[in-house]
Amino acid sequence: MAFAYLTNIACEEAIERLLDALDELGGRVKKELVPVSESLGRITAEPLYARISAPHYHACAMDGIALQASVTFGATSTTPVVVQPDRYVVVDTGDPLPDGCDAVVMVEDVVLPEGVGMHELGVCPVTLYKASSPWGNVRQIGEDICAGEMLLTSGTVISPAAMGAMLAAGIAEVPVVVRPKVGIIPTGDEVVPPCPDPRPGDVMEFNSTIFAGMVRSWGGEPVTYPITPDSPEAVRDALLRAVSECDAVLLNAGSSAGRDDYSARVVADAGELLFHGVAIKPGKPAMAGIVRGVPVIGVPGYPVSGIVVVESLLRPVLERFLGASFADGVSAEATLARPCTSSLKHKEYVRVRLGAVEGKLVATPLSRGAGVVTSFVKADGIMEIPQNSEGFEAGEKTRVRLLRPLAQIERSLVVIGSHDPLIDEIAQIMHVKQPELSVASTHVGSMGAIVAAKRHENHCGGIHLLDEATGEYNASYLERHFPQGGVRQVECVYRQQGFMVAPGNPLGIESLADLAQEGMRYVNRQKGSGTRILSDYLCKQENVDPASIYGYDHEEFTHTAVAALVESGAADAGMGIYSAAKIYGLGFVPVCEEQYDLLIPDYAWDTPMVQALLEVLQSEEFRARIEAMGGYRVESPGMVRRHYETRAQI
Amino acid sequence: MAFAYLTNIACEEAIERLLDALDELGGRVKKELVPVSESLGRITAEPLYARISAPHYHACAMDGIALQASVTFGATSTTPVVVQPDRYVVVDTGDPLPDGCDAVVMVEDVVLPEGVGMHELGVCPVTLYKASSPWGNVRQIGEDICAGEMLLTSGTVISPAAMGAMLAAGIAEVPVVVRPKVGIIPTGDEVVPPCPDPRPGDVMEFNSTIFAGMVRSWGGEPVTYPITPDSPEAVRDALLRAVSECDAVLLNAGSSAGRDDYSARVVADAGELLFHGVAIKPGKPAMAGIVRGVPVIGVPGYPVSGIVVVESLLRPVLERFLGASFADGVSAEATLARPCTSSLKHKEYVRVRLGAVEGKLVATPLSRGAGVVTSFVKADGIMEIPQNSEGFEAGEKTRVRLLRPLAQIERSLVVIGSHDPLIDEIAQIMHVKQPELSVASTHVGSMGAIVAAKRHENHCGGIHLLDEATGEYNASYLERHFPQGGVRQVECVYRQQGFMVAPGNPLGIESLADLAQEGMRYVNRQKGSGTRILSDYLCKQENVDPASIYGYDHEEFTHTAVAALVESGAADAGMGIYSAAKIYGLGFVPVCEEQYDLLIPDYAWDTPMVQALLEVLQSEEFRARIEAMGGYRVESPGMVRRHYETRAQI
Repeated sequence: MAFAYLTNIACEEAIERLLDALDELGGRVKKELVPVSESLGRITAEPLYARISAPHYHACAMDGIALQASVTFGATSTTPVVVQPDRYVVVDTGDPLPDGCDAVVMVEDVVLPEGVGMHELGVCPVTLYKASSPWGNVRQIGEDICAGEMLLTSGTVISPAAMGAMLAAGIAEVPVVVRPKVGIIPTGDEVVPPCPDPRPGDVMEFNSTIFAGMVRSWGGEPVTYPITPDSPEAVRDALLRAVSECDAVLLNAGSSAGRDDYSARVVADAGELLFHGVAIKPGKPAMAGIVRGVPVIGVPGYPVSGIVVVESLLRPVLERFLGASFADGVSAEATLARPCTSSLKHKEYVRVRLGAVEGKLVATPLSRGAGVVTSFVKADGIMEIPQNSEGFEAGEKTRVRLLRPLAQIERSLVVIGSHDPLIDEIAQIMHVKQPELSVASTHVGSMGAIVAAKRHENHCGGIHLLDEATGEYNASYLERHFPQGGVRQVECVYRQQGFMVAPGNPLGIESLADLAQEGMRYVNRQKGSGTRILSDYLCKQENVDPASIYGYDHEEFTHTAVAALVESGAADAGMGIYSAAKIYGLGFVPVCEEQYDLLIPDYAWDTPMVQALLEVLQSEEFRARIEAMGGYRVESPGMVRRHYETRAQI
Repeated sequence: MAFAYLTNIACEEAIERLLDALDELGGRVKKELVPVSESLGRITAEPLYARISAPHYHACAMDGIALQASVTFGATSTTPVVVQPDRYVVVDTGDPLPDGCDAVVMVEDVVLPEGVGMHELGVCPVTLYKASSPWGNVRQIGEDICAGEMLLTSGTVISPAAMGAMLAAGIAEVPVVVRPKVGIIPTGDEVVPPCPDPRPGDVMEFNSTIFAGMVRSWGGEPVTYPITPDSPEAVRDALLRAVSECDAVLLNAGSSAGRDDYSARVVADAGELLFHGVAIKPGKPAMAGIVRGVPVIGVPGYPVSGIVVVESLLRPVLERFLGASFADGVSAEATLARPCTSSLKHKEYVRVRLGAVEGKLVATPLSRGAGVVTSFVKADGIMEIPQNSEGFEAGEKTRVRLLRPLAQIERSLVVIGSHDPLIDEIAQIMHVKQPELSVASTHVGSMGAIVAAKRHENHCGGIHLLDEATGEYNASYLERHFPQGGVRQVECVYRQQGFMVAPGNPLGIESLADLAQEGMRYVNRQKGSGTRILSDYLCKQENVDPASIYGYDHEEFTHTAVAALVESGAADAGMGIYSAAKIYGLGFVPVCEEQYDLLIPDYAWDTPMVQALLEVLQSEEFRARIEAMGGYRVESPGMVRRHYETRAQI
């Protein structure tokens, strides 16, 4: 089953090999003529020269009278000039400049004889108190475009304004590059079309939908072939069909590493294999070759690896086909919120969330799992860790390629702290109220909220930290961690914590002591989370040794993740909030009602995002959603419980 | 003909009135269900919750063996554990985790008994030298997505990755916002559909094509109506039809100010006029109202004004309809290359070219003419001059909203200097050779090239400055203007200068003295251009008083603009290069061959753009194009004639 990749070449070298092979095959830009009105977003295949000038005639730029400027020479406020009706012509804006005229006087500057009305303009003499200069108030031929000028080079993406300019320049049809056809072949016996009810072991085939979207957004035309079973013959047949119909082909392996190897063999047999194995992570098993004159790219099965490989290898191929370059987009400098290590063996692409806190960009690395497609949904940027680097420290500055406009990132509420599904509901209500705002939340537990606020990395975070000594929530922690003050403790909700168990609680679980029994399996929350502090506290109270509970070190980061594991039967119980148990239809053994507050640092208080958050907390919509979710009690959400004012440290 | 606008309200107030009126009409987001695979770029109409978890089962993340982690506890490199075949199951990546197992050991870590082959894995005992932790090498249910979690809020633009995430979460169809229909009514008796051969006075109707492209790029669906003649009845009928069929309507007036007024009256009669006249430039005549529950925006006829008004007023309306906000895009700080004054009466939008010179962004304002649609084609950014500002000085720093990615702007060769059509040809050849590079050229004459290089604002510029004393070109100017050195004088071409005249030279023009005759009309180039210096020099030589030549102060900025005027009959002669005369089929009276060099400052020399420029100059493609254009002679283009090395000033 094990196998070795043929190569471990740098990404840059892989691209070079691929493009060199394309060059050997000869020119690839195919052209077609389309009407200008249908050319939006297409790419010019040739330089375009203006056929006519714009304006194409000398046009009056004002309503008024046209005349020869020389007849007005010498006119001043004290020495006006009278112009007889045979020496001027009444014109409207846009009219052609009449023969013999070279200037227009705007109507406001034309004085009629006393008692004469505007309707007589054209038949009466007029008095002018200002001299015109030749070509004054005239839009001359070619003011905008001169016939024969190059309007657009080849390789230009056609914008709405460019469409207008082409029409103005007498161009009705524009030669554009034919959209390259990209065949996408999903393979794998276990791969099934997406469905709402997959069986265990079914791998849903959504990669081709993602890749098709990427191809489309780069100006290509995706052609998705049926799922091909795992046999060299079937893959070979599908590949030969695709290369005969398309300009490039993506061969999407199943998730098994064994099969990548096998696609490579098919490519090598049917054509020329250029490389197999690239020093990038994710995406190492990437492969490329040329089959019957068509580039074929082997894409690993995991969606995140697949996206990285398609972006890294297919995009340059499409750029070559289109004769255009898509700029790498905008990059910005960001401060890393957590350390991010990487191997010297490969270049690594890490997806990050970005937030603008106190004028600086903060990058929080997202899950690096190759199967975590939501990391691409949540990502605001991509951080590149070079091949020869071991990664970055927390607090280090690094450049990040932005996936969203900076202006949008700057209007995002950065929530780092304890998880609760209500954060997502807040995001939704806030977005409806103020569509320009968004929420980026990261779940790192209550202590994570405190750490982030100390480092000035978030705008707010949920906290529910029980003080064992006093039975109070949060206050003592904030006092201890912020001796200099500078934070506010804001009321959010009270919520039910308890054991999430199978429906009907068939094992009769009532306490942690029950979970310490032989054969019971627990799933825990990560250290530093308020829920973990609660279960540690309960262990002490009940005199239960945590080591005696199987799975006590099995850590998850959200209430829903714990609920999903209990629902799957992988664990018999986990601690969490009622609303998560409700989503999964689980049984729930209440343990306590806890106080879930928001920690809001003073530096973030006046941002539009925090102000919008407070408005949401106080809204009727919020109360209604909270009620519908169940397991919550609200009193005065949004109220400042306590302002830990800034003071000099003692 | 004159008229007064009803209002002169700030743009922000205009938008507010319009949106308030929409709010009064009630909720506007209309939904439709589309298959996820067809949802790229659409906008979610509701928050989307995951229906199933992803993975939806516990999946083996490696090829190897699955087992209960507890059987491996205690295994180390010195105390291996032997696992019997009934305690493990052979698995492939993606397989469901077998019942009773909670960990996977990767095949590389499985040691078989001596002499036993891989094919016997599953029936032989295996030795492990490392303990597994529970859930090691297992992709747990919900690792990516937990059922019930909010995946996307409403108002999210659907990306390829989001499509994948929805499919993974069991969502097959997604509720998206119906694309709002925007009716576009072009009006005006003189307005004709675009054609390659318009008559004088025909105004080509390309605005609706531009507006349709803008609507489409914002996610709307444009509906363009036929051109409506200038009568209140016809406009009223067209408007009532459009409001019955669309969600919003653009009423595009002809170019005459008189007609704007008149559209406003039609809107006021048929519904409610909200405002007429906004304090923005260009775009002052903008108007909006509500007719039968549908917003109607009156758009001025000049294309540049129209684009600004559609961007300013229609975009917020579409955002409201779509429940989404398009970020204002990226802005950056730029240094202004020229002063840019503005009135206190309005907010002004100035289109600028941007270039990255020595790490700083330099903004050069483009033509502010309301009819100059190419200013939008060339623009890299929009500079806003606030209503209460008189504008900016040269050298002042100002924020510019970028219309292109910064990375693209940073790879643009900034050419500021003397005009020659060969600059466009260089741009084209360079783009084909290196699609990631582009050229931004501004024509300000030879002296402008020197000024720009002194201020570190360009990468190169054309110069052809005749020294009257020596008859030499350029060298003495560069010595005088760069006493400290730091520039290179690079050979480009030799070109024919002469008088461009009507075909066959019917007036027998041979010299400037001929042009000083009564009735002759000249068109000149701007002061500071090499061509102007040449004509001034000829005047001196021929003892002709420039004031005696009619039109000597009629200045144009390019050779083609001069040629276009001669071709139109507006002037009898102008000085310019042969290639421009050839484009227009004009007669040409040669005066001299001049040396057209490129001035390249040392600070720009090592940029990829300048290096690419030198490569283009030395290419066969360049020679071939130059030959085809006519009137040029090339010797060693790209050769450094002289390097004015940096030295301390004396």
